[in-house]
Amino acid sequence: MTAKTWRIGVAGLGTVGAGLLAFLAERPEFAPAGGRAEVTGVSARSRSRPRPFDISPLPWFDDPVALATSPQVDLFVELVGGSDGPAKAAVEAALKAGKPVVTANKALIAEHGAELAALAEASGAPLLFEAAVMGGTPAVKMLREAMVGDEIKSVAGILNGTCNYILTEMEATGRSFAEVLAEAQRLGYAEADPTMDVGGFDAAHKISILAALAFGCAPNFAAAEIEGIEQVELLDIAMARDLGYRIKLVASADRSPDGVLVRVHPSLAPLNHPLAQAGGALNALFIEGTRIGRIFLQGPGAGSGPTAAAVAADIADVMAGAQRPVFQGPAKSLVAFTPVDPSKSVGRAYLRFLVKDEPGVIAAVSETLAEAGVSIESFLQKPVENAPESMRGGVPIVLTTHAVAESVLKAAMERIAGLPAVIDRPRLLRIARI
Amino acid sequence: MTAKTWRIGVAGLGTVGAGLLAFLAERPEFAPAGGRAEVTGVSARSRSRPRPFDISPLPWFDDPVALATSPQVDLFVELVGGSDGPAKAAVEAALKAGKPVVTANKALIAEHGAELAALAEASGAPLLFEAAVMGGTPAVKMLREAMVGDEIKSVAGILNGTCNYILTEMEATGRSFAEVLAEAQRLGYAEADPTMDVGGFDAAHKISILAALAFGCAPNFAAAEIEGIEQVELLDIAMARDLGYRIKLVASADRSPDGVLVRVHPSLAPLNHPLAQAGGALNALFIEGTRIGRIFLQGPGAGSGPTAAAVAADIADVMAGAQRPVFQGPAKSLVAFTPVDPSKSVGRAYLRFLVKDEPGVIAAVSETLAEAGVSIESFLQKPVENAPESMRGGVPIVLTTHAVAESVLKAAMERIAGLPAVIDRPRLLRIARI
Repeated sequence: MTAKTWRIGVAGLGTVGAGLLAFLAERPEFAPAGGRAEVTGVSARSRSRPRPFDISPLPWFDDPVALATSPQVDLFVELVGGSDGPAKAAVEAALKAGKPVVTANKALIAEHGAELAALAEASGAPLLFEAAVMGGTPAVKMLREAMVGDEIKSVAGILNGTCNYILTEMEATGRSFAEVLAEAQRLGYAEADPTMDVGGFDAAHKISILAALAFGCAPNFAAAEIEGIEQVELLDIAMARDLGYRIKLVASADRSPDGVLVRVHPSLAPLNHPLAQAGGALNALFIEGTRIGRIFLQGPGAGSGPTAAAVAADIADVMAGAQRPVFQGPAKSLVAFTPVDPSKSVGRAYLRFLVKDEPGVIAAVSETLAEAGVSIESFLQKPVENAPESMRGGVPIVLTTHAVAESVLKAAMERIAGLPAVIDRPRLLRIARI
Repeated sequence: MTAKTWRIGVAGLGTVGAGLLAFLAERPEFAPAGGRAEVTGVSARSRSRPRPFDISPLPWFDDPVALATSPQVDLFVELVGGSDGPAKAAVEAALKAGKPVVTANKALIAEHGAELAALAEASGAPLLFEAAVMGGTPAVKMLREAMVGDEIKSVAGILNGTCNYILTEMEATGRSFAEVLAEAQRLGYAEADPTMDVGGFDAAHKISILAALAFGCAPNFAAAEIEGIEQVELLDIAMARDLGYRIKLVASADRSPDGVLVRVHPSLAPLNHPLAQAGGALNALFIEGTRIGRIFLQGPGAGSGPTAAAVAADIADVMAGAQRPVFQGPAKSLVAFTPVDPSKSVGRAYLRFLVKDEPGVIAAVSETLAEAGVSIESFLQKPVENAPESMRGGVPIVLTTHAVAESVLKAAMERIAGLPAVIDRPRLLRIARI
């Protein structure tokens, strides 16, 4: 608890960086352990871009690597983003130089976490990344520190605020994915290139990090099965709701004797379920442990204030000086988990078929499912008002199944797609197992 | 990350202690930092009492103080309970001897936290108490470590599983407080002397600890305003439900420029609110920060598995060697917060009056409220089926108010109590400000 001054270098001065600079300027002695945080260098792509915080008095570095290795910097904060390029180069340089690193970069940790952990542990420098997942909501600390007295079975939740906002707006306003996305981009809630978010990749980065912490493995982003929300239609939102569900982009990691299954896909959650009730840009997470049971955590998943607060908490943790491995064991002992073949996973499903409005169709569909061994739980056919042209005069049939192996389900769907009365490819959404 | 062996002494061998011994026997090297935890001494009131875990091979200490100071013990785990007596003596002895202490004892920390923190910091020994609040759900770590980059405005939630179980059962089964309590005692969910739980004292201990961590103060249990659930009647549960609310025992701590208001009382939460939906023995907590916004945390609040897992996580934290003050600043600088006069607090309320079934009563009640400056939000009078004898032929009138100062409300209630048509003392329940 010495009142040491920690000289902080901050690379990346977007909203989070600006929020952090404002916070540290206001409360340099925020850390309970008693250290003082002083920003001694900043770096960003543009020095002159207008910012809510005046950076002109701060030493400027064109090159984040030079900032990371500057003798004027004791702790390097990386807010540049991106799994490679300058962010990775600067973090590597800082760790090699034995400097603690705090980052909000989910792509970097998910894709290169194990090698960065090895660098960090070789030089004894902590590498912390609370802000990489769920913004200011401390999911990383919970799994990394608070759950070590348990064996975690699964982690599942809503980890991308942009997708959650879009799905919430689609349901609330009846506007299509494309319309809501365009508005979100105008409002600054979605990036100009929204692929990372709406394609599910951002959520996959985050769940890969949480899976590594939950199961004591190296992050294994390459093994994640990823589906985004681009194909979610208003029709499915409405039909799911009639069946008592809401569609959410759920990221999950489940451990079984065969290995770990990490998935991101649009999923149905019962309307009264906490995940269904987490609307707008909220993030939400269930952690299920053998001893602890189920813990639920919800909060803002992004934003300047929350994310900067998470970065600040990591800085305070560095000051407190704990000696832990970056993940749940020494980096050299970490292995990537064995991915489970998704086709073997068993779960309940929502299926939607577009069929010709003629006698015998329901019988044909349900017989095909029965022959394939898929058991129907609920069934819904109802007329669609103002049916879009894409429906080509067809009638939607929606059903939910009892638990079934995904390979069985997909085989059944293929057979149904081949029925003469079926107009369009069948749609599959999973029902969340939570 | 040296693979040191930590010799653990465990005092108190109830369900949590037994759960901890079983865990450490199974996974002595659970800590990510790499230490090995070995139980080298135990103590309890009775050595021979049947337990789910065989303690005969473990060195036995009749006196927990002797265990706490034994040269065979590096880290002392206190699971004895109670704010004074052997628990306090043993924790003090361990801290004076420079030994890290992990405890699940909410009463001890809430009532003596500041003096114990001073002992801990004088000798450099950590004092950790994650398991004291919300069992295996890491509320303490969240406030102590993860929120230090923010200013917390309020903390509020359901912190006593026994009360939550009783209220949930009363609503579900239509049985009275006394009946459900008796059953909970038979099932082992409630103590033989239930006062600590149902009187709100246990929740008050917990919220006092959270308030200290949230607001950077010493715990100030004496300043908590405490009301239990003993007076909650089925009639109020039903009437509140008709108005769209559920009654929960809510513990809250709110910071304002005047100081801090710490309260525990039965409160109405809207039916669709997460607190209303946390049923049974669940615990739930909202944390509201200036930067982070609102974070919600929910999980099992007690039980052998979750609580032992929280103790184990604290042991792993000791092994990681972080140097932090026990609360949010050095013990010598901690001050107890200034309590806010509850009568000045402003909030919405639920009032219930038992009145004679005669003309003009509603007018009299509502005029009295209007004259006192209390504005009615909703009003409900309905016949009660199978009215209990205690209602003496009266008719209940229930209303909710707009926000009003508590002193104004209480003055109005007194005037109403004096009306000739009012049979019984009016009942007041607060509507949760969350």
